Formats: sequence, structure tokens, C-alpha cells
Amino acid sequence: MARDAKYDILFEPVKIGTKTTRNRFYQVPHCIGAGTNYPGFQMAHRGVKAEGGFGVINTEQCSIHPECDDTLRITARIWDEGDMRNLKAMVDRLHSFGSLAGCELFYAGPHGPGLEARTISRTPSQYASEFGTVPACPGFTYSHEADKDELKRLQRQYADAAERARDTGFDIVDVYGAHAYGPMQWLNPYYNRRTDEYGGSLENRARFWIETLEGIKNRVGDDVALVTRCAIDTLYGDTGLELEVDTLRFVEQASDYLDLWNVTIGDIAEWGEDAGPSRFYASGHENDWVKFIKKHTNKPVVGVGRYTQADKMQEVVRAGVIDLIGCARPSIADPFLPKKIEEGRLDDVRVCIGCNVCISRWEMGGVPFICTQNATAAEEYRRGWHPEKFEPAKSDKSVLVVGAGPCGSECTRVLLERGYTVHLYDTRDKIGGYVNDVAALPGLGEWGYHRDYRETQITKLLKKNKQSQVALNQKPLTADDVLEYGAERVVIATGAKWATDGENWMTHAPIEGADASKPNQLVPEQVYEGTKEVGKNIVIVNHDPYYTCPSIAEKYAAAGHNVTIISSVEVGAYMHYTLEGPNMHRRLHELGVEVIGESAVSKIEDGAVEYFNIWAEGSKREYRGPGKLPRDENKSHKKIECDSVILITGRKSNDALYRELKARKDEWEKNGIEDIWVLGDAEAPRIIADATFDGHRLAREIEDEDPQHQKPFKREQKVWGAAYIPGDNDDLEFRL
Amino acid sequence: MARDAKYDILFEPVKIGTKTTRNRFYQVPHCIGAGTNYPGFQMAHRGVKAEGGFGVINTEQCSIHPECDDTLRITARIWDEGDMRNLKAMVDRLHSFGSLAGCELFYAGPHGPGLEARTISRTPSQYASEFGTVPACPGFTYSHEADKDELKRLQRQYADAAERARDTGFDIVDVYGAHAYGPMQWLNPYYNRRTDEYGGSLENRARFWIETLEGIKNRVGDDVALVTRCAIDTLYGDTGLELEVDTLRFVEQASDYLDLWNVTIGDIAEWGEDAGPSRFYASGHENDWVKFIKKHTNKPVVGVGRYTQADKMQEVVRAGVIDLIGCARPSIADPFLPKKIEEGRLDDVRVCIGCNVCISRWEMGGVPFICTQNATAAEEYRRGWHPEKFEPAKSDKSVLVVGAGPCGSECTRVLLERGYTVHLYDTRDKIGGYVNDVAALPGLGEWGYHRDYRETQITKLLKKNKQSQVALNQKPLTADDVLEYGAERVVIATGAKWATDGENWMTHAPIEGADASKPNQLVPEQVYEGTKEVGKNIVIVNHDPYYTCPSIAEKYAAAGHNVTIISSVEVGAYMHYTLEGPNMHRRLHELGVEVIGESAVSKIEDGAVEYFNIWAEGSKREYRGPGKLPRDENKSHKKIECDSVILITGRKSNDALYRELKARKDEWEKNGIEDIWVLGDAEAPRIIADATFDGHRLAREIEDEDPQHQKPFKREQKVWGAAYIPGDNDDLEFRL
Repeated sequence: MARDAKYDILFEPVKIGTKTTRNRFYQVPHCIGAGTNYPGFQMAHRGVKAEGGFGVINTEQCSIHPECDDTLRITARIWDEGDMRNLKAMVDRLHSFGSLAGCELFYAGPHGPGLEARTISRTPSQYASEFGTVPACPGFTYSHEADKDELKRLQRQYADAAERARDTGFDIVDVYGAHAYGPMQWLNPYYNRRTDEYGGSLENRARFWIETLEGIKNRVGDDVALVTRCAIDTLYGDTGLELEVDTLRFVEQASDYLDLWNVTIGDIAEWGEDAGPSRFYASGHENDWVKFIKKHTNKPVVGVGRYTQADKMQEVVRAGVIDLIGCARPSIADPFLPKKIEEGRLDDVRVCIGCNVCISRWEMGGVPFICTQNATAAEEYRRGWHPEKFEPAKSDKSVLVVGAGPCGSECTRVLLERGYTVHLYDTRDKIGGYVNDVAALPGLGEWGYHRDYRETQITKLLKKNKQSQVALNQKPLTADDVLEYGAERVVIATGAKWATDGENWMTHAPIEGADASKPNQLVPEQVYEGTKEVGKNIVIVNHDPYYTCPSIAEKYAAAGHNVTIISSVEVGAYMHYTLEGPNMHRRLHELGVEVIGESAVSKIEDGAVEYFNIWAEGSKREYRGPGKLPRDENKSHKKIECDSVILITGRKSNDALYRELKARKDEWEKNGIEDIWVLGDAEAPRIIADATFDGHRLAREIEDEDPQHQKPFKREQKVWGAAYIPGDNDDLEFRL
Repeated sequence: MARDAKYDILFEPVKIGTKTTRNRFYQVPHCIGAGTNYPGFQMAHRGVKAEGGFGVINTEQCSIHPECDDTLRITARIWDEGDMRNLKAMVDRLHSFGSLAGCELFYAGPHGPGLEARTISRTPSQYASEFGTVPACPGFTYSHEADKDELKRLQRQYADAAERARDTGFDIVDVYGAHAYGPMQWLNPYYNRRTDEYGGSLENRARFWIETLEGIKNRVGDDVALVTRCAIDTLYGDTGLELEVDTLRFVEQASDYLDLWNVTIGDIAEWGEDAGPSRFYASGHENDWVKFIKKHTNKPVVGVGRYTQADKMQEVVRAGVIDLIGCARPSIADPFLPKKIEEGRLDDVRVCIGCNVCISRWEMGGVPFICTQNATAAEEYRRGWHPEKFEPAKSDKSVLVVGAGPCGSECTRVLLERGYTVHLYDTRDKIGGYVNDVAALPGLGEWGYHRDYRETQITKLLKKNKQSQVALNQKPLTADDVLEYGAERVVIATGAKWATDGENWMTHAPIEGADASKPNQLVPEQVYEGTKEVGKNIVIVNHDPYYTCPSIAEKYAAAGHNVTIISSVEVGAYMHYTLEGPNMHRRLHELGVEVIGESAVSKIEDGAVEYFNIWAEGSKREYRGPGKLPRDENKSHKKIECDSVILITGRKSNDALYRELKARKDEWEKNGIEDIWVLGDAEAPRIIADATFDGHRLAREIEDEDPQHQKPFKREQKVWGAAYIPGDNDDLEFRL
């Protein structure tokens, strides 16, 4: 199918300085946890996007010098020859597909904690970072106020890094001044309190940035295109950088030095205002700010806003808001987004759901990222998983997949792609499992794209594969049913449920009086069903660190209930990592939800809940003999009255079917069953991304030796005996 | 000087199965952030301990299989041939000094989040980890209940790993069952709710552990000594494992399979009960539990308890509490602890201060550890820093060090070790800077060892170096004084102070009305001086994430004041990472300290403080034009009355002297000054460990090209083009 002509505009080449991108799809710099530590991961992940049609593909933030060390977070570095060699693997791969390679020159200031290099950053004034450089610890990392020698030195570090980027083969360097990094700290009066010619007036505050661009231009000339990523409004009103007060004038001053503007909004402490989670922000949410920029520059502009729909993309280009479609998360969810639009295959796009689980992994530091929609993200190199290509089936053995949730539906999709005969079986009337419920929670509608993608793909694949089928709205399968089904392989992907008795991570035991079969107690499944009556005054008993508690609290509070959360863990603690935290807290606050924190529930009675402060045992510990606690008893117990109690305490695998089948293993062979596997939440509850991954994994590894258990992956790490920089010495040499 | 004969007992050899350790100094397994990722770091750090006299030295926790993946935390792994090669560098180095090498076989269960491998762990029952596998997110990671096939498979994984350890050259394998890891999850009824022969009675719960030991013994025989690390009481009373109820019987049952018991107390969620911070626990704090063990086994016993004093060590051995002195933190603070005792140099021991900053880095994940006392820890390989050996001075240029705090005193010590002529100058009457004040806060007395070590060493070194001197109790030096001093090189290490105007990381600006010159407002320095009157009702305005706020709150609350903390950041947030968190929270709770969290102060008046909830702005964001916030205004402001206000809002470098000297650079040459550097907190405020490091660094790098700025270090990472396992293929290969 050919594409609609209205999308042709997206495939026009655009000049960026002396370089030309083949189309308007621009993967803006975004972190993935590869850095220069994992050059194969970096190369392969960016490479599939080049293959998938992105005209420009950038690194993640790439530190210019050890004085910008973002460890515990993993970022790229272009400090030395070793880094250049590792980055060149990526550059060469992008070029092989005709894409341009960009390098984002990154200098964090105190927003990088320096926990590896133990260096101190240079900034216009001295301050402590407002970012949780160490998670939950804003205010931990301080900078050094640069004098003129130091600021010139920093500008040289930028130019040196640009030169190394050029010599690595990059086509573009992007001076990173968004998210409160680098030169933004000089431009923004929130940070810059200098009284010399680098502080005060806008001209003075802009001086550092402009001189830095000049320095780079002088060093690398037109060998690379020069871009800067700029936050055009920090969203603090007049205590920060304001679009119409500061930025438009800065854009006018700096444009001459640049080949492209890469614009965002917001800062680092709340960078979810840029990488907006779908819970709070729709596609194009930055445009009320971004639309000003093109009126003040004659250079092209790239902007982001979770663009996943071709219609929206062509609309913002035609409207003159931006020239290039910046993509970070949408390019992760679907590296073939441009190609699918180009080929008119819009319904094949794996639409980013905006959950920000990708970001959560970078934010916590030290780990590779993952994607809820695209199970192959970060697996391209180490497991050899291509997002769009699959090993053909290596046998004609049929597969029964029990459960059409994230795991079962993804497993089915990939098995069908490979050409296997699959029956997908579920009791619900829709593919998607509990994602159907979650997507009905406040703000989480876009999470339904996870289901939609699998539903669409499976429907299409079934047309090519007449032996396969999807059976929805069925009775639960018994072990007898499975044994007699006639499938040679069985995947049990029956998901998980919330504990109905209050079982939780603190005690690994039920809570006294907790019983979701009682009329005044509910688990989340009963909330979703909506058949149980819920009273005016609700207490949520929470032990879960993710979205379920704040979402259900919001749902009822918005409907006029009085909601109190008693929680052992910070409410929505994990949402700090997904950047949903600040607005989630604001939302609960404005809805009047009361949070009783650092507390747990000891007993649930009709009409009341007894709870205690988790830190109210004695601080002194001593041996007191058997049966005795080694501390003074907790006597902080109090009661709160309520009409309904919602139990969000812990999850349990729905594994009864699997366990019965396993116990009857001796009956498998006579029923023609070769193997039965338990996957996803039915093996152990986990987030949607990991359940999806597990289903995908089994479909890839089904012919391997032991598909229940993961095949080893290619590891990328230091090998003792191999020097990092050619000619360098790997030996231990004391400085004596 | 020869050692006292009473310490001879510490240098007796001890048989551990078929192996013999040369003395009783046993470095128990402890994490450093090297893992198998940084084989040079691992080898060199453990190596200096072998050189320093430790008879046995263990790895950090060493994962037996990818189903135990502790990422985001860095741990050793013995999964494959590549890991074996990387670990062999350490083993060979330990052997070269005559020490035994031990490998701790680690299986986390759900306490390992699996964020790299994306695998699921196997446990006796299914549960969510009570540990913050992702920081601040207990309850995030779930396990899979092992059926019999799975538990046998797990036991094989242990035996396979033990075999690889043996083949790597390890002398000892230690099956890790402390800190709630591995077989402890089977023994402990807190986790084990099985009803088959692996659950229920003690015999049944012990079965997994004992079979695992048997399986290892069958596989490796006497080739390695078999040890198990066991938490002998989980400190939960009868909901966990109890010493006299469960463990002593288990010890009797399992002893036959073992060559040594390695015992601790506590669990993983509060593993500070084992690695006890000095704030709460003195040396030997586990002995009320540990002393039971030797009565129930004929195998030797190693136990820990922050043993740093030779007297205490020989006492616990003679008393029959333990046979081997387990050291983790004391061996980090001083890798030459055994040698110094052996040589009678007790006053040269760098005594561990029990601050747990080492642990904090592992706990947050992804970063190398550091040590407050020992600036060379983790720097042995990458910077070539030996803890006890120094490059001789390469010039006879004299150095003036202004400021005898952590940075200046360490710089002086190392310069003196190298043979430089140094004058150390301070206004206080004691070396140590603000550590003198901090060590007077509740529970922090042992932090004074940091000062003591430097004071003792400098005093000794001055005797050998008659040109050098320490000038205490002096008037502050002016720039003129420094210029005229006569030193050729000057180190400005003048430290930092607390902001007197409320400047903080949230606003990077003062707080209205904050002014520590007023009679009713204090900064921490004024608290330490104790000359300003403090009223009954105190409000602490806190923005700092570390110990200052909870320590000062404790000080006044214990003295009978009513203390309320208004805090933007979780009180003592960083103390979660140092394992001081739980007991600090308990202490504040029992003292009745009130915490108003998620709040900041907008105004300080005489007798009252105005504050607001930091999440009370509107959750909706929209562009409203210049000078306007993009959200509904925060209207949550309230007032609280008080007599005194303590400002713990942010730190500022004392850099006026340096900046004046820098501005007068043209006067340096004529005054015979070659260079002036600003170091430590005077460059940027930081924790004591990093200030110490910076002083040490300059003393090592003083003859290098640019001593103000750190010399590049040896990096250990993957090199593109070098396979990890010999013969392995580094190329991108899609599975098609």
C-alpha cells in the first residue's frame, strides 16, 4: 500500500548546514543506558532506527570531559581515543543506512554527581543541584564557580570534544543546553548570579553559550553541522528563563552560529515537562511554546512532543511549528516508524504509550533501558533481536497460548510472525489482559496502545495463517482441557492477581481482617469491575510502589470520595523514575487525598482500619532471648474510620493451572505434549514491559534447548588482558 | 617496634578444611562496585589487603547464574569463562602474597532486581522483596516459587558455580546465606511457606541449604574449603529465624558439611544491623548472638563487628567467641591492618569510622565505592595509588596548606610522606576542621578517628621533616600574608560554611527573613559553638539530604526541646544508603521530633516560620505569557510558631582568600609563588570522603602538568572489537 500524498512532506530532504538529511525524521539525543560502556548495544540500537528510516540519529548525552561525570547514570563519553573507537561502531552503522549521525555534547554542571571520576563541575555561580543526582537526594552535589580561566577552559573542552566528534565521523554536533545542562546554566538567571560580563543582562548571560558555539565553529568549521538543544522556557515564571522575555532574543542572537535549533521546554528536576508522560501530556504538548521559535530564526527547527501519528506530524510541519519531527520515545517504541509511514503501513506502527518506563531505567542509573511496547529495545545486539525481522519457524509444532495479556499476546504475535500455528485463548472478550483495566484508569488511556498493537497485528497475521486462531470470551481452561487440547507446546500466561488477604512485602503474610470477599473491602480487580459498592470514606491500604495506588486514589477522589492512603512505601515511588511523580503528587494534593506515610495496617475491622508508624519500635537493639523482639515494642497504633477499604498490598501469580499441569507431567507425552512453560506474570508478577519481553523471548527461543529459562546473552564488558586504548597498558602499576 | 606478645594469637595459622590461613585476619566478602566489570579494580583493591597481611580475602558477592542479577548494583559474577578470566586476575594476585582467595556464591532471590538479565529468581514461596531493589521501591521485585525440578536446578547452579570457582583457582567457596540471600530464604519461615519436605519443620526448611552444601561437596570434594555465611538471627522475633529456636539446631545439622562458619545477624532490608554504622553500634555489637555458635560446632567460626583494635580482637578470640577476625570495613579503611598490628605499629592504623559511606555507593548502585578514611580505596588500579607507599618528592619546592580540615590535613600527610616541606596552617586549635564539630554530634564520636589518624601521622612525620610545621590557633591568613609567606606552592583548603541567608537547592536564592545574625536564628556552626541561646520550641528549616539535620534535631530533642523539621527532602535521605536510616528514623520518632515533609519555608519572621507544601501548585500546565507561572498558584502556606530557627539549607565554599589570590596572579611570581590551588570544600562543598580524596590527589599529582585539575585515570570498559569470551564473536548478528 502506498502512502497518502499528504505525508510526502515528511520525506523531503532538509539541509542542516553543509549536511542534508534524507527526510524530516530526527531522532533527538536520548539516553538508553549504553553509553560508551556498551558499544555494541549503542551501535545496534541506533542502527535499527537508521534501517527503519530515521534521517538523523543522535547519541545519548555524550560527556565532553571527566568534569562532567554523570555516574551512577550511564551516559556516552567522548573523553579519549577509546571512546571514539567505541562510538565509531555506531557512526559507521548509521552511515551504512544513509542516516546522519549526531553527537550531543554534554556538560552537566552539578546535575552530574561525578561518582566515578570524583571531579567537580564548573558553573557560573556555585550551587547545589536541585536534581536527585543520587536518587531522592537533591542538594547533594555542588559545583565550583568558574573564574575566567575556568570558563575559557570549559569552552575549550567543548571545542576539543567537537573535534573528537568530527574525527569519529559524526555529521552533527549538538551543544546540549536543554534540561538545565551546560550553557543553559549560564543563560538562566535561576543559576547565573554573576556580576561580570557573563552575568546580569541577557546579553551577558548569553555570552558563554555564544562564545562556546563560536569556539566550536572556529575549530571544526563546516565539517559538521552545528546544532544546539535549548530549553526555551524553564516554566518557573520570572525566576527562570522565559520564552518571550529571554529566549526569543537569545534565538535571534545565536542563530548565526547554528545550522539547526533543537528546542524543548522545562528543566532537569522536572524533565517530565519535556518527556511528558501520557498520564499528563498529549502529543504536541510543547507547541504553545515551540510555535514562537521559527518566527525568530531562519534556521530549521526540530521539536519533540511524542509524535507517533503521521497526521499530526505533517500538520505541525505545514503549520510552520517545526521543520523536523523530533522523536525519542516514539523511535524506541518503533524504530521503523518512518519506514512504516513511507510505505503506508500506519496500522503497523507500534505507538509509544508514554509510560516512560524507558526513562525510568536511565533515571535510576546503571541499567540498560527497556520499552513497554518494543520488547527488542536494548536486545538488538546482545540477543540479536531485530524489531521487524524474525527467524522462520524451525518446526511445525503447534502452540497453545493460555492468556492473551501482555505476555501471551506478544508471544502469539511473534510466533505467528515466525510462521508457527498458534491458538491464543482467553476468558476476556478482548486481547490485552489487565491492560484493558489499567487503560481505563485516570490518565492511562494511551497505555491501551499496547493492546491495540498486538490486537491489530495478530488479526492481520491470522489472515496469513489459517491454522491459527484467537479464542476469546472462553471458559477458564482446566488442566484436563489443556492436556486434551491437541497442542504440542503450551504457554501458560495466565497473569497475576492482587492479594485478597493483604499479603505484602513487609510481612510476607496476610493482614488481620483483610478479606476482599467482604462487602466493604476491594482489591483493584473489584475496583475495575465496578460492581461492588464503595462508600464515601475510603482507606487505601498500600504497599505497592507504582501507579496502582495513586491511580485508584485519583479515580475515587475525583468522583467525590474522601480518600486516605495508608502507605508503607512512598506513594507512587517508582513514578519518580518515570517522571510522573511531580504531577501525580500535585494531582493527589489538589484532589485532597490524604496520605498517612511511613505507616502500615495491622488490622482491618468493619468500619475501621488500625495502623501504626513503621519507625515506632525502639531504636536500641539487644538480645532478649527466644520469642522476643530485640527492640522496644511498637505502640503507635491508631484507628481510622472508613466505609470501604481498598487493598493494594501485593500481587500473586495465577499459576494454579501451570502447577497442576506440571504435577501431571507423566500425562504430557501420551497427550502429544512436548513441553509446557509458564511465562510473564504467571511465573512472577512484573511490569508490563517485562511481561511483554518474556512472551517475546519465548517466541524467539522456542526451539532452543530450554525455552522456560532464558538463553545466555552476549555480554559487553572489560576483558582482563585487553587494553582500552590501543597501546595502553593494562597492568597494575603503582605510582611510586 | 615489636608487637606485644598478647597479639601473637592473632598470627597463628588456622586450618580451614584442607587449606591453612597464615593468620586470623579474614576479609569477609564485601561489595566494592568492581564486580567482574572492573577486573583491575577488583584485583588491585583485594591485592593490597593480601600485601597488608590478610590471610583470607574474599570476593564481593559473586552471582552464580544470570537468574541472580543484582543490577543496578554491581556485583561479581561467575557465570562463564569470561568471568573466570576476570576473577583469576584477583586470585593470582592474592596468591602471590600468600593469602587464600575466597569466592562468595551469591543467589539473591527477589532481592536482586534482574534489571540487566531480565530473569526471574526461584524461591521456596513467591514473594515481593522487602528490600529496595530499586531505591525507595520495596515490593517491586517478585520471585517464582520453585517446584522440585526448579529447586534441584538451583542446587545444580550452585555446584556448577563452585566448580567454576575451583577452576578459577579459588581456595574457598562461601555459600552466602546471610542478609536474607540464597538458602536463608529456605531456612527462614518469614519466606518459606511450603508444605512439602522443604517447608514447615526446621529439618525441612534446612533441607535445601544442606543439600546444596552436599551437592557442592560432591562436585568439588576437598579441592576447596567449604564455608557458609549465615545470619544466625534475623531480629524479627518469632516471625523470622531465631538463634536459640532455629539456628543453633541448624548449625549442628550442617556443620559436618562445612569447614568454617561465617556468621552475622539481621536481614537485607536492614542490613545495617550487621554492617552497623558507628552512629548506633560499637565494635563487637553482634557478640551477644555470635557467642552461642562455637558451643554448637567443632568447626572454626569467623564473625564481624567493625574490629579495628588489636586488643578487642585478641580478647574475642581468647574468649572463644570467634576464631577468625572478620573484617570488611576495617580492611577498607586500612588494608594494612594486620601488618601494622604484626609490626607493633598500632598508632599507624587508619581506624574505620563506621560512617558506611563505602556501603552507600554500593547501595545506590552502579558506582565504585569510596572510603572516608582511605582515599586510595578503589584508586589502587585506576590511579596507581598504593595505600602505604608514595612516590618520593620530585622537587624541593615548599608548600603552604591553608586549612587543616579533612582535605588540607590529608594533603599535608601525603606531601610529608613524599618528603615535601609543608606548612599546615589553621585558625582552629586542632587539626580536623569541621570534623571536630561533627564528631561532637550524637552518635558520631567515632568520626573523630578521621582527625586522629591525620593528627598522629602528621605529628610523626614532622619529627622526620624538621623544615615542616603545623601552625594552629592562628589568625586567618590574608592574601597579603599568603603572598609574603615564602612558600612556592599554596593549597587553599579553607572548607565551606552553611548559608546564613537560607540559600538552598530549590530556589538557589535566600529565604525571606533568613538571617543567622539575628538572635533567634542559627546555622549549624552556631549550634556547634553553643554560645547562642536556643529556645524551647525549635523549627529546623531543612534542605540538606544527609546527617546534619537529623543529628541536630536529635541533639536538641534529647535535651528537652520541642523540635519540628520542615523539610523539602526526606530527612536524612542519604542515610538510607549508609544504612543509618531505619534507626535514625526510630530515634527521631522516640524523641518526638515532628517532621513536616514535602514542604519548604517561604518566610521567617520573629517567632514564626511560614511554609508551604511543595506539591500544592496546580497539576495542569499551560502557557500564560511572560511573568506568569504556567500552573495555578500554590496557596498552601501556613505558619508555625517557634522560639528559634535553625537553617540547614545549603553550603557555600570559603573561597574568598583563593579568589583574591587568583585575582592577584600577577603578584605571584615576584613573591616566588609558582602556583596556588583551591581544593576540597573550598572548591565545592562535598562529603568528608571526597574532600579527603581531593587533598590526597593533589599531593600525589603535585608535579603533574595541571594539579588543580585531576589527571586522567585508567578506564576499564569494553573495547569495541575485542570479544569478551575468547573465541566469541563480537559482531552484530541478528537472529534471523
